[in-house]
Order: sequence, then C-alpha cells, then structure tokens
Amino acid sequence: MDRKIIGVDLGGTTIKFAILTENGDVQQKWSIETNILDDGAHIVPDIVSSINHHLHLYQMKPEQFIGIGMGSPGTVDRDRGTVTGAYNLNWKDTQEVKKIIEQDTKIKFTIDNDANVAALGEQWKGAGENDTDVAFITLGTGVGGGIVSNGALVHGVGAAGEVGHMNVEPDGYLCTCGNRGCLETYASATGVVRVARDMAEEFSGDSQLKSRLDDGQEITAKTVFDLAKRNDLLAKMVIDRVCHYLGIACANIGNLLNPSFIVIGGGVSAAGAFLLNNIEKYFEKYAFPSVRKTTHLRLAQLGNEAGVVGAASLTLS
Amino acid sequence: MDRKIIGVDLGGTTIKFAILTENGDVQQKWSIETNILDDGAHIVPDIVSSINHHLHLYQMKPEQFIGIGMGSPGTVDRDRGTVTGAYNLNWKDTQEVKKIIEQDTKIKFTIDNDANVAALGEQWKGAGENDTDVAFITLGTGVGGGIVSNGALVHGVGAAGEVGHMNVEPDGYLCTCGNRGCLETYASATGVVRVARDMAEEFSGDSQLKSRLDDGQEITAKTVFDLAKRNDLLAKMVIDRVCHYLGIACANIGNLLNPSFIVIGGGVSAAGAFLLNNIEKYFEKYAFPSVRKTTHLRLAQLGNEAGVVGAASLTLS
Repeated sequence: MDRKIIGVDLGGTTIKFAILTENGDVQQKWSIETNILDDGAHIVPDIVSSINHHLHLYQMKPEQFIGIGMGSPGTVDRDRGTVTGAYNLNWKDTQEVKKIIEQDTKIKFTIDNDANVAALGEQWKGAGENDTDVAFITLGTGVGGGIVSNGALVHGVGAAGEVGHMNVEPDGYLCTCGNRGCLETYASATGVVRVARDMAEEFSGDSQLKSRLDDGQEITAKTVFDLAKRNDLLAKMVIDRVCHYLGIACANIGNLLNPSFIVIGGGVSAAGAFLLNNIEKYFEKYAFPSVRKTTHLRLAQLGNEAGVVGAASLTLS
Repeated sequence: MDRKIIGVDLGGTTIKFAILTENGDVQQKWSIETNILDDGAHIVPDIVSSINHHLHLYQMKPEQFIGIGMGSPGTVDRDRGTVTGAYNLNWKDTQEVKKIIEQDTKIKFTIDNDANVAALGEQWKGAGENDTDVAFITLGTGVGGGIVSNGALVHGVGAAGEVGHMNVEPDGYLCTCGNRGCLETYASATGVVRVARDMAEEFSGDSQLKSRLDDGQEITAKTVFDLAKRNDLLAKMVIDRVCHYLGIACANIGNLLNPSFIVIGGGVSAAGAFLLNNIEKYFEKYAFPSVRKTTHLRLAQLGNEAGVVGAASLTLS
C-alpha cells in the first residue's frame, strides 16, 4: 500500500495542511485560523486535533503515514524539534512542537523554518524541477530565502539562507537587523515603497506615482509595479533601482553556488515577467559568464502550496 | 593493512605529489617541474612516470592505494575525468587525464579544479577543522574559492565557488571576465596594486607608497601591506578599501551559507593577522547578527600543502 505524507505550513494568520503522496502530489488540503491568544498556547493542540480529525474523516490510520513535516516561523531547532522566538505566533519561549505532535498523533514529525520549507517545495515540485541545486528568494513583508545544494538544504551553523540580509548598498537604508543596506530594505514589499518615497522627493517630472505620494495616498509595492508597467516615469525608476539590487544579489548567489535555478517567489513576485525581466537585465550584467549561461532565473510556481509541499518533503530525507 | 592515498596538485610551474594515510597525514611528498612544452603533451606522462617511479622506490603496489586524487587548473569534467582550457598548462584541447592515468598506474583516479581541491584540503586538515560547512577564499594572482556545505563540495551546474567574481562595486574596475566591479579586481595581488595606483593619484599627503609609485618603482601587494603595517597613510587607506570589499564578500557568503569558517588563503594572505583583522572589521559590519556570532574568519593553515591534501580527500567521497 502506498504511504502518505502530511505537510503543515504554520503561519501567523493561517495554518495550512495537506496530505500528499510520496511523489509530492497533493491529495487533500485544508486550513485553519492561527489562534495566537494565550502566548500561542493553542497552536500545537489545534494542529494535533485538526490532523486527528481529518484522519478520522478520511478513515486513515497513523501507520499509513511516512511522517508529518512542518515549516514554522522563528528559530527552529531541527534536532530537538523545537521553535523559539516566533513573534508573529506570540511564541516567546521555546515550544516542544515535535514532542507533543508525535505523542498525540503517533506519527513521526520533522520541522524546518518556513523559508527553507518553501524553497524545498519549489525545488521539488515547482520551478526547481527537482534539480539538485536550486536557490529560492521570497519577496514578501521581508525578504527570505533557502538554498538547496547537492540535493540537500544548506543550513550552515543554522542561519543559512538569509538572502534578505545580503548587503547590496554599503551605508544604505537601516535594516531591522541593525545593519545598513540589506537587500530586504529595498526589495521587500515595504522596501519598494521606501525606495519610491525616497526617489519621489528628488523627482520633478510628470508622474502619477509622485502625485499620489504628494497627495498622501496609501501606496503599496503593487501600486509601484502597476504604474511602472503603465510607463510611469518615477515608478519605472523605482523598479529599476529595486531590480538592480535584486540582480546583484542573484548574480552573487549564482557566482557562489551556480545553481540550475534561482526561483523568485513571495507576494512581490506577483509582478510576474515584468519583475523577472528587470532582474535578469542586471543578473546578466553581474553574473560570471559561465554562470550567466547556466543559472536560470524563474518565477515560483506553487504559490501558497510551496509551504505544505516542501514541509512534506522534509519527511523523505 | 592500512591503505594509502596519492594526492596530486597540478600547477603551471610545479606538480606536487604526496602519499597520505586515510586520515590525511602526509607520509611522503615530492614535486617535479611542469613541462608545458608541446601543448602540454608531456604533463600527464610525467605525472604517471613520477608516480610509478616513487611507488617502485617505496616498494609499494597499486593495490595498496585507495586512489589518486588531483587538483587541476582549467575546466574540469569530473565525471569524464577530463580537463579543457587550462591555459597556464598550454592545454587548449580536452585532455583525457583520468583515462591515461588509470590505465598506466592501475590506480583509481578522481579529479576536481584546483580551488575546490584547496578548499577541501583546508576544510579537512586545516583551518576548517573538518567541519561540514566551510568556505575558502584564495587571494593570489586571481581570487578563487571553494564551498563545502553539508560535508560536500558545492559544484552547482559546474562553476560554483567563483568568489572572485562576486560583485562588490557596481560599475567598478573592469575584470578579465568582462564584468565590472568583481572582487578579484580589488583583492587579488594585482588588484591591490591597482587600487594603490588609483588612490595615489588623488592622494596629496605624506606617504612612502606615494613616493615609490611617483618614482616609478615596482610595487607589489606585499609592499602595500608592509607599508600599511608601518602606518603609511596611503597604504592604510588602500588596505582599508581592499578589506572593505573582502568584508562585504565574506559577509554575503556568511549570510547565504552561514559556514562555521570562512578560510582565507593564497599569497596575499601572507599579510596574516593584519589582513584578517581589517577584513573582520567590515565582516562584523555587514554580516547578519546571528551569522556574525557563528561564522568565523580564519587564515589558511596548510599553505602549499592544501592542494595535495585536498586532492587526496577526493578519493574518499
């Protein structure tokens, strides 16, 4: 009988679940709200009861499962199966996630951080085409990433994949990490808006983006991309600057690791081919000639499903 | 009976050989000159006869060896065991290195490029303390590198480890690779001199370095480091700039891979702790806080032996 896998993607607003085959095909999926009340004390019990409820519903037994894999925010101790300091879950203290889930579901449990898990998802079943060498960058509220080399996630001493904190501008914008000029300060959703506000001050031509900002209207990264696509001069300058930094970061990832694919996902990547083409322009400029030919930039393909799929794949290694 | 390994480090002027134990202890070593005449046609036969001669001398048989590992310049095809375009060896066409060496020594042969092999040597028996995650940067005529993650060399599609071509200055110096602002253009032996000449032009204070350059005296990277150590103002400014770029590159390697150690070797690293401290200053500034605490910069320890030791280790994986 074919055995199945459960993938769990734990986020600050929802917890996504899926039951997958060993080949990574999603057979069932569902989600619940994340209840972060009481220092997040309900989260792990909610995960357990949701899994047990669905196994009952589908008339499945723990023995039918290879394991449960989960992606989590915060600092993950993979060996001990604990999570510390996941502030969007209100988890300040260390949570014994693995211990409780294994005890209460009778299924083997594996955990890694959410950016790594999304990277694995795209590498396995998405834009990474199951290649052994894939880098993943997610452009959202922050900028995160994950690196797969020789078919395995790179953890280093623990914090590998901090793509958002690669320096792209010495003495650039101040970052939440305390450093200056991190990629995240320019290329996250808030970073794009920051660049827009900054460049608007010096800009004196004709621009809708400029008028909206001067008007005090709320703008988002999407506003900037949409206006740039409609040839707004300032918006185009902003996107060009953001993509310049992303292009340098991708080139440096390429020069260092020469992966088959650098996959770009996250909310900001909804800007699609327009974003990708602008990044590629600078990637081509800064990548080593043989890297330019062999490392390909791609948009993520799995969207919200990358998390559960990647989480499931944790159980297979 | 303990089996042995042969490590070969093929360079443009000498070929170094060593016989090592499985634990990487060097038991015998010797070297021969590299004869690059006749399109480098003598090189592989010279390697074969030198190995066979020494086995005869030490009364050893092919069966006593796990294998021969070799580091080579040029583009190495590891699966086929061939080398293409190693211009300092006069090898323009593809050379069937593995085929000939295995046939004529009766010992299994493994090959990788010289920077990767030196990285493996330092990772295994040098400053890397046999850790699973080590990055290596060599500062010589050029700047090269090698990355070990999860205990294995990262090759990517083939060209991983091009640390010297990481971009550190958009629109900076033109590099031999055709791009601008590659680390190599500032931090190689010739790069340091280039920075010195450039900064001397704008410099108007009191400086021996400036006088020597204005005098038309020949200067090297060593001259610049030596003068900086003796507090020459311009020399200190040059080293500060070079180490700023090296610090950014090391920080970005750290942010991406979070290795236990980033090991700095090659001729320029003879400048020792003075070099390391100046790089660390900028590494601290640009590395992500947790990376700053867990990734340590170190000077290489094996010197010229890194090549044969790392080459030998190729036979063990």
